[in-house]
Amino acid sequence: MTYCCGILVRDGLVMIADTRTNAGIDNISTFRKLHIFQQPGNRVMMLSTAGNLSLTQTVVNYITEGMENPDTKEVEKLLDCHSMFSAAELIGRAIRKVRSINGEMLEQENISSSTTMLFGGQMKDRRLRLFMIYSAGNFIEATSDTPFLQIGELKYGKPVLDRAVNFETNLDDALKLSLISMDSTMRSNLSVGLPIDIAVLKRGALELQLDHRIDNVDPYFHDLRDRWSSALRQAHLNIPAPPYGQKKKK
Amino acid sequence: MTYCCGILVRDGLVMIADTRTNAGIDNISTFRKLHIFQQPGNRVMMLSTAGNLSLTQTVVNYITEGMENPDTKEVEKLLDCHSMFSAAELIGRAIRKVRSINGEMLEQENISSSTTMLFGGQMKDRRLRLFMIYSAGNFIEATSDTPFLQIGELKYGKPVLDRAVNFETNLDDALKLSLISMDSTMRSNLSVGLPIDIAVLKRGALELQLDHRIDNVDPYFHDLRDRWSSALRQAHLNIPAPPYGQKKKK
Repeated sequence: MTYCCGILVRDGLVMIADTRTNAGIDNISTFRKLHIFQQPGNRVMMLSTAGNLSLTQTVVNYITEGMENPDTKEVEKLLDCHSMFSAAELIGRAIRKVRSINGEMLEQENISSSTTMLFGGQMKDRRLRLFMIYSAGNFIEATSDTPFLQIGELKYGKPVLDRAVNFETNLDDALKLSLISMDSTMRSNLSVGLPIDIAVLKRGALELQLDHRIDNVDPYFHDLRDRWSSALRQAHLNIPAPPYGQKKKK
Repeated sequence: MTYCCGILVRDGLVMIADTRTNAGIDNISTFRKLHIFQQPGNRVMMLSTAGNLSLTQTVVNYITEGMENPDTKEVEKLLDCHSMFSAAELIGRAIRKVRSINGEMLEQENISSSTTMLFGGQMKDRRLRLFMIYSAGNFIEATSDTPFLQIGELKYGKPVLDRAVNFETNLDDALKLSLISMDSTMRSNLSVGLPIDIAVLKRGALELQLDHRIDNVDPYFHDLRDRWSSALRQAHLNIPAPPYGQKKKK
């Protein structure tokens, strides 16, 4: 399975993705799901993917190598798009194309062809944006009201984001919270696993501040997991005992 | 939707269930999903239900009023069962019966007839047990390795239980943790909602220690939610900033 999250705050954008793929529970592999497209000083785009790996990899190939735009008949690549919006449209078309080629036959084998993606970044003189692109190629955009988007196995890691993330959260805290959210997911679903890819883009920087892989010996991530676990334990111990026992009712 | 959880620890059993039902997002009602069957000093049984309300209510009617056992031809009621195991079997048969009557026609209307239930309690001179009963009427039992079971919208509230609950957790803490788990679920899924029913059974007591409904003005639950939220905020603030920014990589 997959868990990816994007957090768009005033200061910038954090993207996080696990790397575990599985074909059945007995066939586990590691594949990068967070793809970076960068021309420093000009544009930074990040795409994280959930769904059948053959489809998502093909989408990445289409948008990297170029795909004909049915309206203009021109071949479009992600790095040539003039806006994040048109880049999101290109990705949507790539998803529709690969599903139209492979979807029906996959469904015959009871393999889902649905895929969702998070696409975020900024181009020169344009806004920093974060989109969630669905299986039909349609998409929504994160706003200051709802500054994070998730794909894949999203529920285990959502409560902590619901409580703690807002548009004013600083970038370090957003990154920390994305790691806590990933940790909660990994603990409850073994099909989401290390290593984790993280990327941080400061608003206006047009160059990644961070592009890093966290593996299973990463000391900071170990420490974060330990601290979070003991804080949670302490937090529930600090809550007074329920008073209900006294007023026993039938 | 529904969220119910049962936690079976050395000291006893905690059951919790929300009460929100919905037929579509625009038709919300309140129905009790935690059903208590008690003969103080003799037996206490608790059943929480998830799935189509007409089916789960019918199951409760079958097991309360009695259902013919196909092997013995005798009419069996839940309160007459001689063990928690045979009671779980009776509930399983009731689920199969109602699904065999209504299932096909519901499926024609694209309404799922699947249902899951948690069934826990103790009979005199017997063990305290907790079962999860599936749509086919089969069931599993909680053990000291896996002391909690959940049905319905379970993912949002699972991480806190995964981290904090074990067989040695005391009853007050188990109840607190079930409330925290419910709170996390309610915050992330509006179709799970107040009031909440809680019940606590001490091992060997053969009478409920607590049978209580928490409504939206319950001061303890409000306080618990506030304390938990601020503890989580504090917990992530106390974690040092990620060190990755320094060793920037392409």
